[in-house]
Amino acid sequence: MRVTTGRVSLVGAGPGDPDLWTVGGVRRLQEADLVLYDALVDVGALRCVTKAQCFCVGKRARQDSVPQATIHRLMIRAAKQGKQVVRLKGGDPFVFGRGGEEALALAIAGVPFEVVPGVTTAVAAAELAGIPVTHRGVASAFLVLAGHTSDAVDHTLRSVRPNTVSMVILMGVSSRGDLASRLMAHGWSADTPAAIVCAASTPDAWTWTGALAQLGAAAPPVGLAGVLVVGDVVRVREVLFEASRPEQAGNEVSYGRKG
Amino acid sequence: MRVTTGRVSLVGAGPGDPDLWTVGGVRRLQEADLVLYDALVDVGALRCVTKAQCFCVGKRARQDSVPQATIHRLMIRAAKQGKQVVRLKGGDPFVFGRGGEEALALAIAGVPFEVVPGVTTAVAAAELAGIPVTHRGVASAFLVLAGHTSDAVDHTLRSVRPNTVSMVILMGVSSRGDLASRLMAHGWSADTPAAIVCAASTPDAWTWTGALAQLGAAAPPVGLAGVLVVGDVVRVREVLFEASRPEQAGNEVSYGRKG
Repeated sequence: MRVTTGRVSLVGAGPGDPDLWTVGGVRRLQEADLVLYDALVDVGALRCVTKAQCFCVGKRARQDSVPQATIHRLMIRAAKQGKQVVRLKGGDPFVFGRGGEEALALAIAGVPFEVVPGVTTAVAAAELAGIPVTHRGVASAFLVLAGHTSDAVDHTLRSVRPNTVSMVILMGVSSRGDLASRLMAHGWSADTPAAIVCAASTPDAWTWTGALAQLGAAAPPVGLAGVLVVGDVVRVREVLFEASRPEQAGNEVSYGRKG
Repeated sequence: MRVTTGRVSLVGAGPGDPDLWTVGGVRRLQEADLVLYDALVDVGALRCVTKAQCFCVGKRARQDSVPQATIHRLMIRAAKQGKQVVRLKGGDPFVFGRGGEEALALAIAGVPFEVVPGVTTAVAAAELAGIPVTHRGVASAFLVLAGHTSDAVDHTLRSVRPNTVSMVILMGVSSRGDLASRLMAHGWSADTPAAIVCAASTPDAWTWTGALAQLGAAAPPVGLAGVLVVGDVVRVREVLFEASRPEQAGNEVSYGRKG
């Protein structure tokens, strides 16, 4: 009798393009029996690399997401049946991905698990829009926060002196106007360069740049996830684009997948 | 006559393990004519995936690194000769990697280029040591800075209220005692949980955890690059390890490659 040991791999899928999956992540998918994936994962690419049963457990339009406790139960049950489980998460599992909570649930249940880091959207979205989160002489530190709960945002904004670091806000596109007001109320200059980067690395990628005070008036396509970037590093994008692609300079640039 | 157009790809190689290279990064390496790589890149794995000429331009023991201007010149000259060039950088190209400067140099020279994000060591090193940089109820934001210039460190520490965010310090292992003193001088509690994670994702991986005040007394293996993590999220590692691997709990844990 072959003894199988189940295991859960918490795998980061990066910002969207399967080209930004890791080699180790792809191998886990190839070996998997069960894949529980987030809504932002490229399902076509997923079906190409794995023969596993695949279930979406993330939030989809007009549907509630699967409760976190259910995700824990599905992973634990399958691993205890001897299955190789991949929990495929957008970006990096441990950056606002509840990966820490899932790891704890697995540890407490006695299920072997590992974490396979991914390309975090916090860095890559800005990067693919030509914005380095750090840049010599411009910013020597960057702060990453989530924009979906105003209490946590206010707590973080009270902690940081305005206009001293690059700020990357995940899950903040839909509340961009409110976030801009909060930043300015905490002392950030109205003319601080700001960017919205939606669906980075995918064919739907969409970028806006302007002043912080204009952030609320920007109109990103409805339904795309994205990040906000606030700080002087946003100007690097303009310099890059003016130098290399003058025809694409401007406030609203839509561009496709790179490479 | 076949017309070839050269191009430079700034590719992130992640924290060390080639398993954390991206699919797109590997393809760029396979297609490359010339690879200019950083010192922390796994050269054996590199030779396996590419037939390109490969040169190390990073800092190696007892040797100066290649000047930045020379790297720019090498990339530009090769691309103008029609070559496919990969500039393979540790971690992510745009996180303290001078990727922004290299992109600007290429843009100004009129050389087509692209950026292929990588798994940033800032997040992955902590993660592979069981430390999520964000965790519900523990930390809702994280700050990343470089520890190699004390002026920049002091500037950043003046900007952030102590003990409010997770702090990840890159290039700070060798000055860990000085950095701990600076943090405490800026008001961080002496008993703030802290971690040193060296050579994450490689067979030499080495982790220490303790209180901030003890950071200077920790003795990581000489010559390994690593990150410092300061903040309550470090405690998640202890909970994870106590729950899942009691035999490995303790202050100094040496562990190998995952998966």
